[in-house]
Amino acid sequence: MDYAYYRTHNVFVSKTYKDFARKFGQRVVELRKSNGLTQEELAHKAEIERSYMGAIERGEKNPTLKKLFSITKALNVKATELF
Amino acid sequence: MDYAYYRTHNVFVSKTYKDFARKFGQRVVELRKSNGLTQEELAHKAEIERSYMGAIERGEKNPTLKKLFSITKALNVKATELF
Repeated sequence: MDYAYYRTHNVFVSKTYKDFARKFGQRVVELRKSNGLTQEELAHKAEIERSYMGAIERGEKNPTLKKLFSITKALNVKATELF
Repeated sequence: MDYAYYRTHNVFVSKTYKDFARKFGQRVVELRKSNGLTQEELAHKAEIERSYMGAIERGEKNPTLKKLFSITKALNVKATELF
């Protein structure tokens, strides 16, 4: 079970950064595929090195807010869709 | 006008990272105040240095996803609420 249910706030919250980063990466993959982009194409559009993009998608990295922003631009989505 | 309207995706998207970071910081301030926390208290809870937290709130920094996660934990909110 990756998520804990916090009844008082009625939201699901990842327990650890590892869970959070993995979920974030999975959303990037989903949105990339729904945009019909390869990992290489997304990396190019977002101006992120391809191997780094792969690691983001696997939840292995700690990307900056600026990289997150670049990914939203490349996918043409709101940041809220990445979580 | 800070935001451009992308009709095809029906979403508002910040034009520049500066706009994006500023809006993010404003959300942190709003959520912190609605939690009744001072900047110092939030910084302490999120284990972020206070002056850095101030700079995040002013949109002057490029925080990592891990710091964003720490802020969600400290505020007990979902990441989507920060955008």
